[in-house]
Amino acid sequence: MPPPLHRMSATEVLNLLKDEKINVVTYARDLLDRINKRDSIVKAWTYLDSGFVLNQAKALDQIPRGKRGPLHGLAVGVKDVVNTKDMPTQMGSPLYKGHQSYYDASIVGILRAAGALIFGKTTTTEFCAANSGPNTTNPHDPERTPGGSSCGSAAAVADFHVPIAVGAQTGGSIIRPASFTGVFALKPTYNAISPEGTKVCSSTFDTLGFLTRSIADLQLLADVFALEDDEPVQEIPLEKATVAIVKTPNWESAGPGTIAAMERAEELLKNSGVEVHVVSFPAPLNDRDRLKHISKVIVCSEARRSFLREYRVNKGVLGPDIRSLVENKANFTNQDMSTALDTLASMRPIIDKMAREYSVILAPSAADEAPVGLEDMGSPAFNTFWTGFHVPVLNVPAFTGAHGMPISVSLVAGRFRDQHLLRIGQVLSDALMAESD
Amino acid sequence: MPPPLHRMSATEVLNLLKDEKINVVTYARDLLDRINKRDSIVKAWTYLDSGFVLNQAKALDQIPRGKRGPLHGLAVGVKDVVNTKDMPTQMGSPLYKGHQSYYDASIVGILRAAGALIFGKTTTTEFCAANSGPNTTNPHDPERTPGGSSCGSAAAVADFHVPIAVGAQTGGSIIRPASFTGVFALKPTYNAISPEGTKVCSSTFDTLGFLTRSIADLQLLADVFALEDDEPVQEIPLEKATVAIVKTPNWESAGPGTIAAMERAEELLKNSGVEVHVVSFPAPLNDRDRLKHISKVIVCSEARRSFLREYRVNKGVLGPDIRSLVENKANFTNQDMSTALDTLASMRPIIDKMAREYSVILAPSAADEAPVGLEDMGSPAFNTFWTGFHVPVLNVPAFTGAHGMPISVSLVAGRFRDQHLLRIGQVLSDALMAESD
Repeated sequence: MPPPLHRMSATEVLNLLKDEKINVVTYARDLLDRINKRDSIVKAWTYLDSGFVLNQAKALDQIPRGKRGPLHGLAVGVKDVVNTKDMPTQMGSPLYKGHQSYYDASIVGILRAAGALIFGKTTTTEFCAANSGPNTTNPHDPERTPGGSSCGSAAAVADFHVPIAVGAQTGGSIIRPASFTGVFALKPTYNAISPEGTKVCSSTFDTLGFLTRSIADLQLLADVFALEDDEPVQEIPLEKATVAIVKTPNWESAGPGTIAAMERAEELLKNSGVEVHVVSFPAPLNDRDRLKHISKVIVCSEARRSFLREYRVNKGVLGPDIRSLVENKANFTNQDMSTALDTLASMRPIIDKMAREYSVILAPSAADEAPVGLEDMGSPAFNTFWTGFHVPVLNVPAFTGAHGMPISVSLVAGRFRDQHLLRIGQVLSDALMAESD
Repeated sequence: MPPPLHRMSATEVLNLLKDEKINVVTYARDLLDRINKRDSIVKAWTYLDSGFVLNQAKALDQIPRGKRGPLHGLAVGVKDVVNTKDMPTQMGSPLYKGHQSYYDASIVGILRAAGALIFGKTTTTEFCAANSGPNTTNPHDPERTPGGSSCGSAAAVADFHVPIAVGAQTGGSIIRPASFTGVFALKPTYNAISPEGTKVCSSTFDTLGFLTRSIADLQLLADVFALEDDEPVQEIPLEKATVAIVKTPNWESAGPGTIAAMERAEELLKNSGVEVHVVSFPAPLNDRDRLKHISKVIVCSEARRSFLREYRVNKGVLGPDIRSLVENKANFTNQDMSTALDTLASMRPIIDKMAREYSVILAPSAADEAPVGLEDMGSPAFNTFWTGFHVPVLNVPAFTGAHGMPISVSLVAGRFRDQHLLRIGQVLSDALMAESD
């Protein structure tokens, strides 16, 4: 007996839709049933109108077969900092309660033009910038956070509400919740997908990406978004793959779950015939405090300008984190910002060069399992530097921790090698996940 | 007898409004009269609703004196790639005919929160990215272009329709039309003003700024937008000022008008007791072709992603320039783009250092007077590199060319020295403009 539709990956559903074994309405009904049963616990959605979803599904069913897009009928959840023309975009902020832009963000416009069914809006922390807020729970344990700030996107995909969700990452807001909830995710190369129409926090770091339950689904999206490598992507068999295990300058933040996962990953890859090298960031990138300071200066200094409008319109309803950013409570100077921007830029070609010496880099995705409690959404310590380096990161949810919660690893490639990353990621994840369910 | 209201600078009008010598409705009526008389020739506006303007003006008049903002009642034209909640934003593209986002761009939200009267939308080339389009004319000669892509913003300010207009620059789209129409303009430090809610072309280059008829008006805006230098701004008298005259690697593009203007500027400054140095960009920044290539690779490669949505939605209505960008007709690789981004980033601290050795840099604003004809909007050759260096540029319309058309010079400072640039710009422009009317 086939699994219920909501359990299927986007690619599997797409085949059923293409063969007209199901239609979009049938599919949407099954997802809505799942959400009805589960969302009182998971609370992944900040806006979802079943009637509107079904009307959209009907309209998609009426498109003649020859005119259907490459994502025809696939349900997509959209993080609530990304504008949608037909739904509110409330940004996790009371200032934006009921707010609607009536114009799709670029990423949503491209999804819609490809035939996707824009399902609803998923929860976020305030402007992606705060580290608490929504009461979304981790589908694997309602006492635990799904991670932030793409909380709802991760939870909705992990809990089988939709097969695809749009996330946005400034520090670790895609990869960390993907790790905590056990789903695949791609944070593509910076600016490979236009951020137009998305709330800006730090324009040097902000990156849009996707959460799914399979790499094939990420591949589908990468093709729709015209992510193209310079070279044709080579199929690299396991025995010809070389992997750089990079524990990163933040390794001391790793908890027992992540330490065990990284060890197990190394062992599994070696057992599969992969050539494994344990590698460190070259100087001066190996200085944890410096890396952290650079990211913090840039994100805070850019966010200070990004949120000036909200501060001027009504600072009284902004959270203390956002107010502190605009008021520059950290006292960063412009010179701090310029120096940090220039230094970070000088690091990018170093990382690119390092990445090109191996098939892929393997690194931690988060410190450990998702923490208990909904207020602390975990640390982006293992993600922010990759975001600033502008390199693509693939989350592979291969492991579990001491409490049975998911633990992931990150696969990383050089800039604009997103297609290569997905291909080698598929090969390696088959080996890494051989034992997982 | 005082000049008519439409001839006054924003600062002058602000004083009259503050003292309640006039109200906003009186002011708006005078501007609308001016526009009625002139816009059939100048064609600066793509959207202007007199009734709506007057209603907004009435609402501003009803705000109690103590609650009025720092720009209370000042009329602002907004380039038609910048979203306004109450007016269409048509981006110079048939794809966006009648389009309205119903949400202000960040820059408009801040202006509105400061009490500005958002007057209407000014013409632009297609997405700021094409180099022809609107039939806007130069107020000094209707046979000549006002320059692009902020055509309408420059023409509206130069022709006394409004005292302030918002412009956007990727190459030279603020400074060049300001030079051609003879107005002041500030392209601030990159990212000093959030670009959120503006059509994205090239996110590494796109910068928002203002066109006005006085430096005092730019100062008013810089304060509202919280442009803050690290050090308190010093008043530098002419005899203590040091100016680096930088003809730039594009000097061979300079026509006789610009050559004469740069010579006259040097002479005027020397006569005023200013210490003048003639300086070149240090290697490797002195290679014109390399500089041009770097900018072109980045702008084209980023624009390729920025316009993918429009291409997917309806490529048939896009201009050939925009289609070529998305189709990557220039055949730039991702490696070209990464290398160009890294190289440009490595140049920024070099320019910063050079700028800090002098009170200010003086450079050409455009090749010459505005060309005859409306199709060719002139070249951004003297602007694009400053935009990519992220440094603030002030246009000073001090001179006239052989046909009596305006010719300007650019004053340039290091990153985040916008306030210093305005202060020294005021001192120097008094000397440079001593003979102009």
